[in-house]
Amino acid sequence: MAKLYFYYASMNAGKSTLLLQADFNYRERGMRTLLFTAGVHDRAGRGRIDSRIGLEADATPFDADTDIHALVAASHGRARVDCVLVDEAQFLSHAQVLGLARICDELGVPVLCYGLRTDFRACLFEGSAALLGLADSLQEIKAVCACGAKATMNLRVDGAGRAVTSGAQTEIGGNDRYVALCRRHYMEQMRGC
Amino acid sequence: MAKLYFYYASMNAGKSTLLLQADFNYRERGMRTLLFTAGVHDRAGRGRIDSRIGLEADATPFDADTDIHALVAASHGRARVDCVLVDEAQFLSHAQVLGLARICDELGVPVLCYGLRTDFRACLFEGSAALLGLADSLQEIKAVCACGAKATMNLRVDGAGRAVTSGAQTEIGGNDRYVALCRRHYMEQMRGC
Amino acid sequence: MAKLYFYYASMNAGKSTLLLQADFNYRERGMRTLLFTAGVHDRAGRGRIDSRIGLEADATPFDADTDIHALVAASHGRARVDCVLVDEAQFLSHAQVLGLARICDELGVPVLCYGLRTDFRACLFEGSAALLGLADSLQEIKAVCACGAKATMNLRVDGAGRAVTSGAQTEIGGNDRYVALCRRHYMEQMRGC
Amino acid sequence: MAKLYFYYASMNAGKSTLLLQADFNYRERGMRTLLFTAGVHDRAGRGRIDSRIGLEADATPFDADTDIHALVAASHGRARVDCVLVDEAQFLSHAQVLGLARICDELGVPVLCYGLRTDFRACLFEGSAALLGLADSLQEIKAVCACGAKATMNLRVDGAGRAVTSGAQTEIGGNDRYVALCRRHYMEQMRGC
Repeated sequence: MAKLYFYYASMNAGKSTLLLQADFNYRERGMRTLLFTAGVHDRAGRGRIDSRIGLEADATPFDADTDIHALVAASHGRARVDCVLVDEAQFLSHAQVLGLARICDELGVPVLCYGLRTDFRACLFEGSAALLGLADSLQEIKAVCACGAKATMNLRVDGAGRAVTSGAQTEIGGNDRYVALCRRHYMEQMRGC
Repeated sequence: MAKLYFYYASMNAGKSTLLLQADFNYRERGMRTLLFTAGVHDRAGRGRIDSRIGLEADATPFDADTDIHALVAASHGRARVDCVLVDEAQFLSHAQVLGLARICDELGVPVLCYGLRTDFRACLFEGSAALLGLADSLQEIKAVCACGAKATMNLRVDGAGRAVTSGAQTEIGGNDRYVALCRRHYMEQMRGC
Repeated sequence: MAKLYFYYASMNAGKSTLLLQADFNYRERGMRTLLFTAGVHDRAGRGRIDSRIGLEADATPFDADTDIHALVAASHGRARVDCVLVDEAQFLSHAQVLGLARICDELGVPVLCYGLRTDFRACLFEGSAALLGLADSLQEIKAVCACGAKATMNLRVDGAGRAVTSGAQTEIGGNDRYVALCRRHYMEQMRGC
Repeated sequence: MAKLYFYYASMNAGKSTLLLQADFNYRERGMRTLLFTAGVHDRAGRGRIDSRIGLEADATPFDADTDIHALVAASHGRARVDCVLVDEAQFLSHAQVLGLARICDELGVPVLCYGLRTDFRACLFEGSAALLGLADSLQEIKAVCACGAKATMNLRVDGAGRAVTSGAQTEIGGNDRYVALCRRHYMEQMRGC
C-alpha cells in the first residue's frame, strides 16, 4: 500500500535537501520519479528546487489550478511512476492534497510532501492543514533555534529585525525575512510587538 | 523543557486508555496530574473519561470558555503539577491550545493531549488544527480498518449504515454512528453517496 | 504488506495495557488475534498477560523452544489470523524473532511485540536486540522518571533500595525490585555503587 | 535536556547527507559543531565525510581507542560546543557510546549519530547495538528496495552479484558490494545460497 507522507518543518530545516536525497535514492535504483514545486516559490527560478546547502533540481511548477493528480496519472499511464515528490507543499490546495491521496490509494504510487507547518502568525497553510489531516505519516524535520532547542515556528522580521505580526501569509522575499525559532522564543517576540 | 504532545487518532483507537495509562504512570510515582475532558463528551457523564476497554476516571470538563491555562496555573501555584492530560482534545479552541502551550513553555509542565484528527467529512477540528500546528510532538495512535490497514478516517453512518456526507461536525450520539476506516475505504464510501 | 512492530520501553510504562488495547481494537472489529507471552513471566500465572492498571487476558506462553512461527502458521491455516501480539518480547530468542518476521513477510500477518529494551545493566535482551535489528517499526512507550524526564533505563535495587550492578539478567521477583529512571539518574545510581 | 539521537538506516539511504544538513543548520546559526567519522571508513579519505549526492566535509576520525568524550569535553571547555555529529556510528564501541551519553547528560550537548542498523548477516554492529539500547531517540532514514518497499537490510554480494552469507563484518570495498533490500527480498536472497 503506497503512503502519503508529510515531512513538515519550520524554515531552514533542510526540507529540500531531504527531498532531493529521497529522489536520488529512487533514481539511483533505476526508478522513475516526478518532482513538483510551487510556482510561487521561484527563488532559484520557477520550477526549480534548490537547497541552501547547494543541491538543485528541476521540477514541474504547480499553481492553484494545476491538476497534479491528472499529470501524474497521465505520466503513470505511459510509464510506471515509482514516487512523486512535492516541495513547498504548504502551497497545495485542499483539492490538490485530495488528488495526492488518490495517487497513493488508486495508482499505488507513494507521495512524499515537504513543506512548512505554519506561517509567521502560527497558522496552518492550506496545504499543511490538508496534509496534517490526511497524510499517512507525519514526520518532522528538525531545525534549531538560537537557544539550542528545536525550532518549530517562523518569525517574520522587518528590515530592522523586528517581529512582524500581520500581513499577507506569503510574501515575496528572501529567507532573510524569516527566523526559525522555538515556540517559547517565537511567542516572546510576538508578544513584544 | 516541557513539551506539548498531541496523540491523534481516528475513533476507537484507544486514546482514552492511553491517556489513563499515562496518568497512572505519573500517579504511581507519586506525581500530581490534572485531567481535562470536553464537557460536550458526556458518554459516561459530564467530566468523566471512559475507555471502551473498561477504564474510567474523573476529569475537569472544559467548554468553549474554560480558561484551562488559568486553572492549571492556579493549581500549580498551590502545589506542583507534574503533568496535564486532556482528552477529547479536538474540542479545544485555538485559544485554549495557545494556553496549553504556555503551560509547557512558562510553567514547565508537560501537556499530553489526546483527540481525533479529522471529523466525518475529513476536515480538521479546531482543536486538532491548533495542536497539529503547535505541538512539539505529533504521535499517532493506531486503529484498524476492517481490511486490516490502518484506520485514519471517521465515517459517519445513518441508522441503516449508509455514509453521511453532511451535517454538524459534532453530533450527540453513540460510537455506533461512526466507523473508523482507512482512507481508501473511507473515500469509496463517501463517493458512493 | 504486514509489518513487524517493536514497542519498547522501560519497566512500568504500560506496555501490556497498550498490547491489550490493540488486541481489543482488532477483536472489536470481529478480527482474530493470537496472543503470546513469556512463560517465565508468571506474575499473574503462566500464560497470563496482566497490566498494573487492571487489565488481563490469556495468552499462549512461549519458552526458549516454542516454535511461534509454526503455531501461528498452523492456526492461520485453519482460520485467518489478523494480528499476532507478543508481550514480554525481550525474552524471545533471535530465532523466534526471525520466525515472527516470516509471519509478516510470508503469511502477511502483522506482528506487534511489546517488551523491555535493556536489562538492569543497560544491556539489550536477546529478543530486544533481534527486534531492534529486524523490526519494520520501532516505537517507544514512555515511562516517567521521578525527575519528570522520560525513563528509559531499569535500575535493579536490593531490599534496601540500593542499586544492584551485577547478577542474572532475569530475576524472579516483583516489580518492586526495579525502578525506571532516566539515563542520567540511572548512571548516577550505577556509579554510586 | 540534551538528547542522544540514533538515525539508523540501511546502506544508501542518505545518512551522510542528513548529517551534513543538520551540521549546516547549526553552523548557519553561528553555532559550533564537532564532526566525527570512523577511521576505517576512508572512501573519500580518512577523516572525510562524503555523501553520494555530492556533499563532503572534514571530520575527526575515530578508531577503537579514540576517547570521543574526552575530545569533546576538552573542546567544550575552550568554547561551547552546540552539537556533536557522528557518522558511521555503527563502528563505535559500546564504551564510546557510553561516552556520547555522558556528553549529553553531563555536558548538555546534543549528539546526533548516523549509522547502519545491521550488517550483511542481519546482525547488529557493536555501535548500533549500544545506540539502539541507549539513545533517547531512534529515527529511521528510509532507503528503497528495488520492489518499492522500504529497504532495511544490507545484502553483501560477490563479483557476480550473488549473495554472500559469511565473512568479516566489515569489508574494505565499495558500495557496489552491497545492495539495500527490504527484509522479504533479503531473506529470499540469503536462503537462496
